[in-house]
Amino acid sequence: MFSENLFFTAAPARALYEKYAKELPIIDYHCHLSPKEIYEDRRFSDLGEIWLAHDHYKWRAMRAFGIDEELITGGASFYDKFCAFASILPQLAGNPLYIWCALELKRYFGVDEPLSEKNAKAMYDRTSALIAERNMTPSYFIRQSNVEFIATTDDPADDLAYHRKIAEAGGVGVASGTSAEGEVGAASGVGVASGAGPADRSGRERARCRVVPAFRPDKALNIEKPGFADYVGALSEAAGMPIGSFRELLAALERRLLYFKEAGSMINDNAVTRFIWTDYTDEEIERVFQKALADSRPGPGSGRAVGARLTEAELNAYRSAFLFEMSRLYAKHGFVTQYHIGAYRDANAKMFARLGPDSGYDCVDEAASVRSFGTLLDRLNSAGELPKIIFYPLDINQYEAFAVLATAFCGGGRGKVQLGAPWWFNDQLYGITKQFESVGSLYPVALSVGMLTDSRSFLSYPRHELYRRALCNYLGTLVERGEYFSGEQELGAIIRAVCYENAKSYFGL
Amino acid sequence: MFSENLFFTAAPARALYEKYAKELPIIDYHCHLSPKEIYEDRRFSDLGEIWLAHDHYKWRAMRAFGIDEELITGGASFYDKFCAFASILPQLAGNPLYIWCALELKRYFGVDEPLSEKNAKAMYDRTSALIAERNMTPSYFIRQSNVEFIATTDDPADDLAYHRKIAEAGGVGVASGTSAEGEVGAASGVGVASGAGPADRSGRERARCRVVPAFRPDKALNIEKPGFADYVGALSEAAGMPIGSFRELLAALERRLLYFKEAGSMINDNAVTRFIWTDYTDEEIERVFQKALADSRPGPGSGRAVGARLTEAELNAYRSAFLFEMSRLYAKHGFVTQYHIGAYRDANAKMFARLGPDSGYDCVDEAASVRSFGTLLDRLNSAGELPKIIFYPLDINQYEAFAVLATAFCGGGRGKVQLGAPWWFNDQLYGITKQFESVGSLYPVALSVGMLTDSRSFLSYPRHELYRRALCNYLGTLVERGEYFSGEQELGAIIRAVCYENAKSYFGL
Amino acid sequence: MFSENLFFTAAPARALYEKYAKELPIIDYHCHLSPKEIYEDRRFSDLGEIWLAHDHYKWRAMRAFGIDEELITGGASFYDKFCAFASILPQLAGNPLYIWCALELKRYFGVDEPLSEKNAKAMYDRTSALIAERNMTPSYFIRQSNVEFIATTDDPADDLAYHRKIAEAGGVGVASGTSAEGEVGAASGVGVASGAGPADRSGRERARCRVVPAFRPDKALNIEKPGFADYVGALSEAAGMPIGSFRELLAALERRLLYFKEAGSMINDNAVTRFIWTDYTDEEIERVFQKALADSRPGPGSGRAVGARLTEAELNAYRSAFLFEMSRLYAKHGFVTQYHIGAYRDANAKMFARLGPDSGYDCVDEAASVRSFGTLLDRLNSAGELPKIIFYPLDINQYEAFAVLATAFCGGGRGKVQLGAPWWFNDQLYGITKQFESVGSLYPVALSVGMLTDSRSFLSYPRHELYRRALCNYLGTLVERGEYFSGEQELGAIIRAVCYENAKSYFGL
Repeated sequence: MFSENLFFTAAPARALYEKYAKELPIIDYHCHLSPKEIYEDRRFSDLGEIWLAHDHYKWRAMRAFGIDEELITGGASFYDKFCAFASILPQLAGNPLYIWCALELKRYFGVDEPLSEKNAKAMYDRTSALIAERNMTPSYFIRQSNVEFIATTDDPADDLAYHRKIAEAGGVGVASGTSAEGEVGAASGVGVASGAGPADRSGRERARCRVVPAFRPDKALNIEKPGFADYVGALSEAAGMPIGSFRELLAALERRLLYFKEAGSMINDNAVTRFIWTDYTDEEIERVFQKALADSRPGPGSGRAVGARLTEAELNAYRSAFLFEMSRLYAKHGFVTQYHIGAYRDANAKMFARLGPDSGYDCVDEAASVRSFGTLLDRLNSAGELPKIIFYPLDINQYEAFAVLATAFCGGGRGKVQLGAPWWFNDQLYGITKQFESVGSLYPVALSVGMLTDSRSFLSYPRHELYRRALCNYLGTLVERGEYFSGEQELGAIIRAVCYENAKSYFGL
Repeated sequence: MFSENLFFTAAPARALYEKYAKELPIIDYHCHLSPKEIYEDRRFSDLGEIWLAHDHYKWRAMRAFGIDEELITGGASFYDKFCAFASILPQLAGNPLYIWCALELKRYFGVDEPLSEKNAKAMYDRTSALIAERNMTPSYFIRQSNVEFIATTDDPADDLAYHRKIAEAGGVGVASGTSAEGEVGAASGVGVASGAGPADRSGRERARCRVVPAFRPDKALNIEKPGFADYVGALSEAAGMPIGSFRELLAALERRLLYFKEAGSMINDNAVTRFIWTDYTDEEIERVFQKALADSRPGPGSGRAVGARLTEAELNAYRSAFLFEMSRLYAKHGFVTQYHIGAYRDANAKMFARLGPDSGYDCVDEAASVRSFGTLLDRLNSAGELPKIIFYPLDINQYEAFAVLATAFCGGGRGKVQLGAPWWFNDQLYGITKQFESVGSLYPVALSVGMLTDSRSFLSYPRHELYRRALCNYLGTLVERGEYFSGEQELGAIIRAVCYENAKSYFGL
Repeated sequence: MFSENLFFTAAPARALYEKYAKELPIIDYHCHLSPKEIYEDRRFSDLGEIWLAHDHYKWRAMRAFGIDEELITGGASFYDKFCAFASILPQLAGNPLYIWCALELKRYFGVDEPLSEKNAKAMYDRTSALIAERNMTPSYFIRQSNVEFIATTDDPADDLAYHRKIAEAGGVGVASGTSAEGEVGAASGVGVASGAGPADRSGRERARCRVVPAFRPDKALNIEKPGFADYVGALSEAAGMPIGSFRELLAALERRLLYFKEAGSMINDNAVTRFIWTDYTDEEIERVFQKALADSRPGPGSGRAVGARLTEAELNAYRSAFLFEMSRLYAKHGFVTQYHIGAYRDANAKMFARLGPDSGYDCVDEAASVRSFGTLLDRLNSAGELPKIIFYPLDINQYEAFAVLATAFCGGGRGKVQLGAPWWFNDQLYGITKQFESVGSLYPVALSVGMLTDSRSFLSYPRHELYRRALCNYLGTLVERGEYFSGEQELGAIIRAVCYENAKSYFGL
């Protein structure tokens, strides 16, 4: 049966968690939720759909067990997919999927027993009934999970139509209830018109959940990818200005950045792979930019692979220029910058051709260069234009070096540059605990802006619970070993800071 | 005194081990045992010979303590070598040699007390007496350890004479006994003619141990090494065909692969170091091959260093071509492929000149490229010719990246590509536990084909016991922390799978 | 409250610590203490000065919390700086500063309660009073901490004037007391003339603390740095010979090495970054040396960046030649060589310009090449000129590879080449424990020369206590898990060896 002692090995951990962490609201400053689904408060048919329509973590695990692709991303029913997934779940000992599923079943559906092939049908029926009965829509999960802020991930060319509509509706869900089951009082915002969703557990008044876009200009960074010229066209249109040069690209992106800012955004995000800092001249960058445009523009005789003519040296010069110039803009306009570092995307070309990106075929590139990011930050810092920065290296072995690098650029603001919570493959107990233990010695844990979901699913909020449990267990362990004895109040302050307050002030909420 | 609680810190661990793991047979799918010694069922004079004639782990430790080489690989008696080793054993706290020795003494000689300089003579005498009395030959240890399958490591040019003889004899040892000491019933196979060896502990009927060769074409991969031309000659003779080109080399290797297959083999193995995937043309590879042949062929005026004319770029192109083309053959003929990645061989040239390879002077190269292996797999996968693959990176910090890479190529078979058990320097409690904890979050532990000995010694089977203990402790820890609650039966299924059944089905036994 | 159970999770740990480790003298074979301050036995005004005048660990942490530089390295009073630091201390859970401060307060000032903003003034007053009352000078801390040997870090051009004076005074402090508070008996040496300082706790006669210089020729290695020509001039003067070539540089350095040897030194140290072994000819090296001299010599028209004309390839050839040739001298003259590997210095150019080196802006370079050091050692070994070597890689992920490399070159002496204690960022419980657990499996822990302070502060000796506690806990854990059962006496021997005896014999004390 599910245990509320989950993760706790240190004696003080549970009490710390219950007292200081459990009830704190969630600030989800990086995720991949769909603003359209949030605004439309879409309905889900069943847990098969919720769990398996988009979750490449689960797809990947199912493939590892040799399950037929038909039951993963193919045409099989969500019921059959659910059963196929349930059949491997008991074998997922030690995998985060096991405890994520357990927590989602427990927190949203009140399920204590373990899901398996044996009870898959009963569980499917039970959860389907609850989904319909309680009208479990995005707003339901958001309110139920006490989420106060959400930043989605958006392209600069995006018109942010749904974000504007959500904002006009006053955010997502407002509930002030007094019981765990009833729905009480005046409510407004997305998801309330539907009249559904229980009140929160604590009965306290809850704030609207604010939803903002985050500015992610990956398509302008990845000039070697097919379709770059088309993308520049789309961006040009969105910005209402021509883009014929790198300088104009920057100008157009700044216009869009201000457009995002108007829509409430204060967060940038970047996927950075294979980046070696390379000194450059403006002339070079213009040349590389023109080459990229020409290469990716379809025309007579351009049947060759797109990007084939750009060398790694040219790409690195462009990446250096792009990251440097854009980061100046983030500093100028008060945006926090995030670097997601070292993903090795689409390793399986055959399946990429069939399923496209984000289908469970991304891997870890161990070759990110700490010194290249160091040079980038140093240049920005020397120019007096260093924004707030969060590093998310994908290689778990680079946590230490990035944490130390961050501390070299903190002058001028509490935790200004920092190491983010463990990303992707490392977002699990081992990764989180390793980060606390290892990085705590290098960069004060108390400064961390804490957890994010990074998820496409509305049911991923229990990842915050896992993080909080891991944090309380880490701190409890320090107490047990005599490594910390400043008292419970001070610990409580650290917990509140990491789980909530740091993010609030860091992002200016 | 030796404790049967060894390694167990989680409450459920010992019961899990006793109930599900302890009695399972061993499938030793990768080792360096000598088929000649197996067939001839050689006799050992004493534990000094068994332990110190070939074991470079022990040599290395002895050298670290400053023991004279005379007492390590020199002309001293095995008794003196045994005493020298015994003198450092109490100082080997935390080193796997300590617990390996303890387990070998306990399981094969019933010794509970710790070996040291003080009792070295008594231990030597006691074990020598038992070796003689019980006729402790290879077949003794194999049967005693409940080994069901052994794959040795063999060169493609090998005639497999001893493997054929072992197969003709029906494998190694068959014993159906009812007591721990007596030898009962009809028995056949290698090691039975000698009439020696006790029955197994459980009294159940045991299968013959099957012994097959594994196909390891390192000498055809390492074209920069001295003697390459000679090796090509030997291979040509073995294959009964001329080898004047890379294409003919592949053809000859395919003939030998089929010869191995006839001898029961289904396993390939490769030592891969310094491999950077490099696109190539067939013409280039032919040119590199001819150059390598010419360079390594002794002739007038060829006094210069062998291989000196091959550049790193040429070598990497050749390695890419060789691994790609050979892996296609493994897929075609149903062989499992193993990549042993990142050894830094023969770091000490002076001692290499004196003692040759495998003498305790190999190290860890931290520079293996995950992306290069990713490209290799991707090309094979796109061609529809991806064999089953097991990665063994030597750098413990690359487990995560290789595990994730493996999951991107599992389509089409349960655990088709996987991370192998910790190799060499990492084959100890810390490495094994780290792999479970770290990789369990990335690649389901339940899919692992589990442990192998990788050993030259017939006494190394307790390494399986250590692995099983570590596995049960890992799973028990998950239960204790509330991270797993699907019940004991499901855990038992995982344990049986990892310790025995996965390997059986993966290798088609 | 501070607990004497600090760090202990294994049952046998505390007894092992108390019985075998606690009372052992300290051999501090690598630190950055000032011989001038030792000789002059300088007086400190308060704990703010002691803690915050030079400690870049604390500066770095304060900056991470956004404290104004004025309160860190600026003109604020030490009292204000002390209070600023105290205000963040309760938030430093998991950071080594927390427990370092706690231990320094406990061991030197008898403080049990945690320091914080609330009691900062009281603590400041109390410690200031004790500093004055007990005359807490360098000699006080050295004697109080039972330090037997100190090796500072010195430039080859240094005249070692203070080292000579300390030696003439017979070392630091001699006390034979019988009570914890009184000062008894005949005493001589530095710090005794002042008549201050309590006797040691145990009441046993203590040896003089010997202080020697260590030979650190970084300025002759780093030919790309500004001022190289000036440095060569200074060295030439110190050596009393012209330096017009690389050969003459080596000759001058050998003279200085002998000068250091006369002053009691037997220790060399090197900071090595970005080193890729590169084969070279003597002619090349001379050319590179001349270029470096010319580049760094101010003259007409040399306004360009110093070192700009040296390529990475040239620098690596020079580094290879320098390290090889100098190491031969260390072997010849019986010096132990230390390599501090992989620091990424002065990452923040703006703050470097303002505060200079060692101000808390150094980072970790993850790109050190194990194979390059392997080649260096192999060449020295083949030449029969391999000195004793200690590796200190800064990247915690390279411990394993360097430990294994070390074992390939141990022939000819107990622990001849070894991995040093965790350096800098890794000098904390997580790093130390990780090293024991991980490296213990690769290189026998029992051979380690143990801990050093690497500190600029006279209050850093409790780092030895932390290391000893971690060691005893590690060994106690092995016992608890059944991985070691050779008995307490053998464990005691290991503890004494690692904490004291190994260093004594390794350095020939």
